[in-house]
Amino acid sequence: MTFRELIAAKRDRRKHTREELDFLARCAAAPKAHGVEDYQLSAWLMAAYLNGLDLDETADLTLAMAQSGDRLNLDGLPHPWVDKHSTGGVGDKTTLVLLPLLAACGLTGVKMSGKGLGITGGTIDKLGSIPGFRTDLTPEEMIAQAGRIGLALTGQTPRLAPADGTLYALRDTTETVASMPLIVASILSKKLAGGAEVLGLDVKCGSGAFMKTLEQATQLAEMLVEVARRCGLPTHATITDMDQPLSRAVGNALEVREAWETLQPDAPSTRFRELCIYLAAETLVAVGWSKSQADGQATAEARLQDGSALDRASLWIAAQGGTFDGDALPAAPVIRELKAPSGGWVSRVDARVVGQTVVELGGGRQRKEDIIDPAVGIEVLVEVGDQVGAGQPVFRIHAKSDAQAETASLSLTTALEVTAEQTPRRPLVLGTH
Amino acid sequence: MTFRELIAAKRDRRKHTREELDFLARCAAAPKAHGVEDYQLSAWLMAAYLNGLDLDETADLTLAMAQSGDRLNLDGLPHPWVDKHSTGGVGDKTTLVLLPLLAACGLTGVKMSGKGLGITGGTIDKLGSIPGFRTDLTPEEMIAQAGRIGLALTGQTPRLAPADGTLYALRDTTETVASMPLIVASILSKKLAGGAEVLGLDVKCGSGAFMKTLEQATQLAEMLVEVARRCGLPTHATITDMDQPLSRAVGNALEVREAWETLQPDAPSTRFRELCIYLAAETLVAVGWSKSQADGQATAEARLQDGSALDRASLWIAAQGGTFDGDALPAAPVIRELKAPSGGWVSRVDARVVGQTVVELGGGRQRKEDIIDPAVGIEVLVEVGDQVGAGQPVFRIHAKSDAQAETASLSLTTALEVTAEQTPRRPLVLGTH
Repeated sequence: MTFRELIAAKRDRRKHTREELDFLARCAAAPKAHGVEDYQLSAWLMAAYLNGLDLDETADLTLAMAQSGDRLNLDGLPHPWVDKHSTGGVGDKTTLVLLPLLAACGLTGVKMSGKGLGITGGTIDKLGSIPGFRTDLTPEEMIAQAGRIGLALTGQTPRLAPADGTLYALRDTTETVASMPLIVASILSKKLAGGAEVLGLDVKCGSGAFMKTLEQATQLAEMLVEVARRCGLPTHATITDMDQPLSRAVGNALEVREAWETLQPDAPSTRFRELCIYLAAETLVAVGWSKSQADGQATAEARLQDGSALDRASLWIAAQGGTFDGDALPAAPVIRELKAPSGGWVSRVDARVVGQTVVELGGGRQRKEDIIDPAVGIEVLVEVGDQVGAGQPVFRIHAKSDAQAETASLSLTTALEVTAEQTPRRPLVLGTH
Repeated sequence: MTFRELIAAKRDRRKHTREELDFLARCAAAPKAHGVEDYQLSAWLMAAYLNGLDLDETADLTLAMAQSGDRLNLDGLPHPWVDKHSTGGVGDKTTLVLLPLLAACGLTGVKMSGKGLGITGGTIDKLGSIPGFRTDLTPEEMIAQAGRIGLALTGQTPRLAPADGTLYALRDTTETVASMPLIVASILSKKLAGGAEVLGLDVKCGSGAFMKTLEQATQLAEMLVEVARRCGLPTHATITDMDQPLSRAVGNALEVREAWETLQPDAPSTRFRELCIYLAAETLVAVGWSKSQADGQATAEARLQDGSALDRASLWIAAQGGTFDGDALPAAPVIRELKAPSGGWVSRVDARVVGQTVVELGGGRQRKEDIIDPAVGIEVLVEVGDQVGAGQPVFRIHAKSDAQAETASLSLTTALEVTAEQTPRRPLVLGTH
């Protein structure tokens, strides 16, 4: 078998065999060793983007990519081992609350996260704003830590699913990211290599997400669940709203602070806290520890209210070298509020515009190699369905300079829509699979 | 404009503008200078292969590629300046006779040729078997020589149409060769950069050609002529048979010898000689020097019979440093004849099998970097429509060793088909455009 034959097969819409996809993943994991060039991999990627991969091929590719490097061996850790993944959005800091909450419920969470790109924030960037927090644990350190405190999180290592590392980097610069089968194989191969027994997926849907419509999000959720099932990884997916920012804070240090507040026993109920409880309940049901969503929610709520989730978060941050201290978090020098020009009902808070504005403030990356500023960001003070009075603050901008705050406030004027009629609140959960 | 936008546009079946294709050709001519990677070029190539380029785009791409480097300036040479191109076949040495024949008719021929790859022979390889013959003339040497003797031929230089050089090399290893628009742009961009006023194309059709069916060959011929017209280069195309080898000799030195014999004033009429006369006549009509094919054929025939085409060939070889001496041409140590197993009528001589056997003998390249042996080859002693007796020689193998001759004779048994009923001779010219 040659790589050229693989390119020609997909170019001609032929279905790949499992052997071909094993060969592909081995070539992608170590192109030089196989005499394969990046430009051949990218030709295959474009052929796969345009001619597609069916469910069999996607499952075979996923497994082949998962087996292309090391796999975490979680033997010895308390069962069940859970992992979660969000397809990414604006203000999405769910992992920071959900992982300690699940650990507080008695599950073991070992997770790898990525950096943010574009409007999509990255968990590693958020945690990286905590002074001292290490995001470069080795697999051995991860497992040891999860054994001690029930959870561990690190940045992606090239030792796991190296085929995905090569292909993902090429996809980014060859406009082949938006392929459903390639997205599914990329997400699930890393999760399979990560060794979890149960995977919970949060598929974001709306202007601030990759999937803009419920139809697209449903298609992705169904494909993820089905391919994961074929690969032997029980997986549940929840489709959740990302048309407006998930929560008040958007920007790395701001989000860490909000997550910390959300973990407090007496924290008020917010959309964000609701989501964390909902997703925890889904996973508790999936592992058989709760009989129903309601039962799971009650358990999760209890673990928040009795402070055990917060305890788990403190242990976690300490275990990875950090200290949570609100005063020590990076803070932006300029804070400016943007006020509603007229009174009425909030009908739209555009997550995409808010996310893009945070990128422009320096809180996100336009290109992978960009350095981010953890201090900057935006607080979104209203939600769709809220009533606002003229002059009431709607956004709070945290910026490096007055000039940047000024630019951001101009951008944000297009993010908010206020109407005379009352607009219903948006449902948070749009579907489960 | 970024190269990524170009990839995304073709991926999404959008039509490229002229500006986009100018940018593409500039990037392909000097990828590093534009921060473009080979893997981005190949992603675009696969998108273009699968989603196509229409006639406007193909013409714009052709012009952009032609303008991506130097262009030969033939000012000062006697008009008209002609060029020819064959899409490639087995035993196709037409240039070796046609170019001096056109020069003998008073036209000026300045031509660049390529090396052979696979079963397709290359004019540069054939001429390279003449001791001393230089195939590395500079553009300046080409023009000076054409001024003195009416013709010059050299290998392709990276100074002309460098965008094609980059794209062609990538297409070869990314399975994106067989795209009609990319083929057309590649052929015509080099011809446009070569500066000719009139172009004659020989589109080969059959088992030994790239285009297997008359339908494919017609589509290519029509597209070549139309795109050339849009680019301002008057072009005529002749579709000719390549189902059986074009002539007796297949293999570099053997073909040079046959071309030389064909140029002799008293040479017998053969399919190959007929083709040279036909193509010369087409070009004489195209430049307005002959009123009809018949008129053009009479002129060409006269220039062969009065020895002026042979004179031109002698001057040409001498001008490029070679001497034609049959005894000095490389000769293979082993010559073996293959005989017809039974009598009857020849119904098939498979050009592809003959071409492949010559490659296996070492006379052609499997890969671009292979070194060829100019001495080896096959003489095809029969044509479709000939009557043969049992035991009559049908192929003469010229090989490096007995073992290679033995292997070749086994391969060749599948190339010949003899039937009891008489088979009509195949027409040589299948269409003109």
